[in-house]
Amino acid sequence: MAQLRIALAQVNPTVGDLDGNADLIVEWTRRAADAGAHLVAFPEMMLTGYPVEDLALRSSFVEASQRALERVARRLADTGLGDLPVVTGYLDRRTVGLVRSGQPAGSPLDAAAWLHGGEVLVRSAKHHLPNYGVFDEYRIFVRGDRLPVVRVHGVDVATVICEDLWQDGGPVSVTGTSGAGLLLAVNASPYERNKDDVRLDLCAERAREAGCALAYVNMVGGQDELVFDGDSVIVGADGTLLARAPQFTEHLLVADLALPAADPAVRPGRTPVDALDGTTITIDRLALSPDPLPAYAVEPQTVAEPLDDLAEVYAALVLGTRDYVRKNGFRSVILGLSGGIDSALVATIASDALGPGGVHAVLLPSRYSSEGSVTDAEDLVKRQGLNSRVVPIAGMVEAFEEQLDLHGLADENLQARIRANVWMALSNEHGHLVLTGGNKSELATGYSTLYGDSAGGFGPIKDLTKTMVWALARWRDAQARAQGPCPPFLYPFEDEPIPEAIIVKEPSAELRPGQRDSDSLPDYAVLDPLLTDYVERDMGRDALVGAGHDPALVDRVIRLVDLAEYKRRQYPPGPKITPKNFGRDRRLPITSRWREPSAH
Amino acid sequence: MAQLRIALAQVNPTVGDLDGNADLIVEWTRRAADAGAHLVAFPEMMLTGYPVEDLALRSSFVEASQRALERVARRLADTGLGDLPVVTGYLDRRTVGLVRSGQPAGSPLDAAAWLHGGEVLVRSAKHHLPNYGVFDEYRIFVRGDRLPVVRVHGVDVATVICEDLWQDGGPVSVTGTSGAGLLLAVNASPYERNKDDVRLDLCAERAREAGCALAYVNMVGGQDELVFDGDSVIVGADGTLLARAPQFTEHLLVADLALPAADPAVRPGRTPVDALDGTTITIDRLALSPDPLPAYAVEPQTVAEPLDDLAEVYAALVLGTRDYVRKNGFRSVILGLSGGIDSALVATIASDALGPGGVHAVLLPSRYSSEGSVTDAEDLVKRQGLNSRVVPIAGMVEAFEEQLDLHGLADENLQARIRANVWMALSNEHGHLVLTGGNKSELATGYSTLYGDSAGGFGPIKDLTKTMVWALARWRDAQARAQGPCPPFLYPFEDEPIPEAIIVKEPSAELRPGQRDSDSLPDYAVLDPLLTDYVERDMGRDALVGAGHDPALVDRVIRLVDLAEYKRRQYPPGPKITPKNFGRDRRLPITSRWREPSAH
Repeated sequence: MAQLRIALAQVNPTVGDLDGNADLIVEWTRRAADAGAHLVAFPEMMLTGYPVEDLALRSSFVEASQRALERVARRLADTGLGDLPVVTGYLDRRTVGLVRSGQPAGSPLDAAAWLHGGEVLVRSAKHHLPNYGVFDEYRIFVRGDRLPVVRVHGVDVATVICEDLWQDGGPVSVTGTSGAGLLLAVNASPYERNKDDVRLDLCAERAREAGCALAYVNMVGGQDELVFDGDSVIVGADGTLLARAPQFTEHLLVADLALPAADPAVRPGRTPVDALDGTTITIDRLALSPDPLPAYAVEPQTVAEPLDDLAEVYAALVLGTRDYVRKNGFRSVILGLSGGIDSALVATIASDALGPGGVHAVLLPSRYSSEGSVTDAEDLVKRQGLNSRVVPIAGMVEAFEEQLDLHGLADENLQARIRANVWMALSNEHGHLVLTGGNKSELATGYSTLYGDSAGGFGPIKDLTKTMVWALARWRDAQARAQGPCPPFLYPFEDEPIPEAIIVKEPSAELRPGQRDSDSLPDYAVLDPLLTDYVERDMGRDALVGAGHDPALVDRVIRLVDLAEYKRRQYPPGPKITPKNFGRDRRLPITSRWREPSAH
Repeated sequence: MAQLRIALAQVNPTVGDLDGNADLIVEWTRRAADAGAHLVAFPEMMLTGYPVEDLALRSSFVEASQRALERVARRLADTGLGDLPVVTGYLDRRTVGLVRSGQPAGSPLDAAAWLHGGEVLVRSAKHHLPNYGVFDEYRIFVRGDRLPVVRVHGVDVATVICEDLWQDGGPVSVTGTSGAGLLLAVNASPYERNKDDVRLDLCAERAREAGCALAYVNMVGGQDELVFDGDSVIVGADGTLLARAPQFTEHLLVADLALPAADPAVRPGRTPVDALDGTTITIDRLALSPDPLPAYAVEPQTVAEPLDDLAEVYAALVLGTRDYVRKNGFRSVILGLSGGIDSALVATIASDALGPGGVHAVLLPSRYSSEGSVTDAEDLVKRQGLNSRVVPIAGMVEAFEEQLDLHGLADENLQARIRANVWMALSNEHGHLVLTGGNKSELATGYSTLYGDSAGGFGPIKDLTKTMVWALARWRDAQARAQGPCPPFLYPFEDEPIPEAIIVKEPSAELRPGQRDSDSLPDYAVLDPLLTDYVERDMGRDALVGAGHDPALVDRVIRLVDLAEYKRRQYPPGPKITPKNFGRDRRLPITSRWREPSAH
């Protein structure tokens, strides 16, 4: 066996910020060197950020990424870090091979490189391109066909990229053939509820398949609708968990591994191998340091405990919100505070993300606002120490009504739109980003006003059912009551940040006298599980009824969800915590006439 | 040689309307039978409409399509049309073969079938899946590997689907091997400016490659952002144009062809063939009617003259607008009429699409509206005979200003949002769809107000540069002046529908005293070509400067366009007339920090 101390840099790059991301590489390589690491790895597409979407099709951007890679390699050497091998993701392009019609312009590659001694040693690219869920990589990448195997202190280290782990055949299969002692996977794997367990199982399975230990470094941070949770892990060749980084925070996971020494008879060079997925992959062998290190004393490993389900979701929302605000160049947010549970939770997430000083609440009472709504909102402002102002909307509503004779929904929507005008005006005047309070239950069923409550820059809770909104509000209050240190992603409020009165009140949009959500929507306790089956699981009418949902309710909810598609297209982004965060599907034709049949 | 009268049914299905689309198949098959056709072909995905997007991933929808296909086959036979072979597109799924991780759920197929004698004779599916521009078919389909070759009156007819023509190798290559006498391509090929010429050249090239005549039937009609232009064509084996349907209208293109008779020694059965694209395709031969027909007298062919460039674009906008309104279940539209050129052109397109009786104009003068704006808008209302009302906004603006102290842009945006509130309120009250007046130049540069002028259900001119807006306004007025019959896609106004004063005035948003577009934007004569190069052609800064654009202007416009990305995400759909209809790219991360470098 040979010893190797590896460092996984679980860091937070920003899409397009090549200089800032290069700075992160230098800074965290320095930390790895200080920790005595023999190899440091950064996430997939570290240098460009991920996902770059259609930027990959811009030639000038690809070239900027290539230049930035060469520059960071030299800079590492110039600052005395040239001896430490660095593996990092970046954007490259394929320069050989057939250009076929219909393929992405410029043949971009989701690439990874080994940097050493001021040079780019070896380059490879993602072989399996994901094209489902949030991924559309056939659109922007062509696939790679190389497996680098680099000998570091007598250990052969193979590198693969993210989706290469998730699909059968390809680089993992070839790693098994190569006799590598360590499989290093660089990733930008977005958070989804319960995905941490799936990923750990996957790493264990692929380690056994490759016949060697597997080190998995993931990105962390929010990027538009995606939140990367980190949760980098190292497993042994038998799948045993050896080290694990904490979630939702930058971290250098350093681990001492005992790995099989490489066969000295296997020499550098290129060997094509059947990848067992209908393609051929070329193993690209290099030797950096052929001999194992003298034995040294190992350090204790970090094995972070994963967060429980609610903590994990809440942490994702806080990080997603903070990074959206920050990466868009804002320092503060504004939101309408109604006295209801949705805006209360959004305000609390914002306080946790930015500190209460960065949160501006606007109370917008109308003639239909209950006494309790106003006092509850004021109570929340006081508990959290938010900036706030009251802007009554009655005069504005009257000015419209003088010119227009409106009834029913048109009148209700008008009030919601006037409120949105106020927060958008204050946003434009003072430079705060507008946070939107819609939850998934109401957005999926269309129970919201376009250009009204749905208006804004970011919707922190748009992927939460109403049931989950309540659960998280209770969870957040419980954290404030709990003994012991406050989790690092929460603001240390003295008191419960959300008044109990807000959590227990019956939900209402307060757009007409005595209005209740239950006038328009089924009870959330039956609606939310049905929405989950229809939206997340794509179950048709028969399957929904077969799963035990009430047939009349199924027909009603399908109708509501299908007709709300148009509105959903115009909502702001928000953090994803489920595979389908919003409408029934990622995209549907607005003018589709397809409805699940309601009778047989 | 053998004679064959083929009919191409260039029709307008609706996504998801399986019953309505089946009715179209029966109705147009009847017309083809009445015309004495021996074979009738419908577009790609005729039965489901196109594009179905993520509906393909819903199992119940795929099954509904399969059942609808069987049903329409029986119905054709039951109504006496069973003897006429029908080729139509529909949605199917693959039931054999490996299910791989990462592949679309349920393995959906973009399929085509031959119907005859009440039965589905043979099924195949699109082999080449487009995944660029407006297409994301790797996300929702798996590829087909069959080439049906059906003997009809002694002629072997091979069928392929849309993208199969656009990429090298695959079904067209195998058609050449098969000895087919006619290649029938079923298509749903969206309109893009100048694409008709490209398509005709492509058909000629593929006919020569396959060594036989080629009949190309295309869909017609609007579906959300796509407009299908029809323009179905038939070319001979040497690429000569034989018949051509008119654009932007339903049409049965009937043509008598003299085709090589099939070799009687070639028998029904299945033969796998190398498709020269790394795959194998199985030729699936059937014989419906082995012997050529006795000679008959041919009818004259239709060879429609294509529209010129401006007429074609205008026709696309009219059809796209009409079908969006109609397919969404609306009968009327509402729009703000400012007295400027953009809303004037939108009103005119709407009149052409729906008749002036379906168009409701709202004039919303403010303290900054010029005298001319109001009288010009009134002139347009009178010329076109629109429904109209005047809603002054001064009182509403004052009601907001009593509560909020706003300056500069915040104050300008407020007015735009109040106007949007008015038309949205009238839309909600009276059930009109809101049309939005933003053009591509202002939307791409962010010169518009989110939830203000950009608010609405459909943006007919969102893909037109300002230069094109002026050109189309002049073109439309010229049509009203022209001698001879009015083109069928135009409303027969007595007088020029757009007042000259609106066309010649200097553009202004009229949100502050004396405001002009030129205060904020470069002259449109230099801006628009630069936007086209940056947005459509994805040219980077150096390439733009190299192409002769002023470097300072390039830097300024890149900055404007890159920063407007967030707004663009929240705009309503509108008809596409260029490959990239709106922002610089289809999708970019909002929080991207990438900017084209502005210095070297």
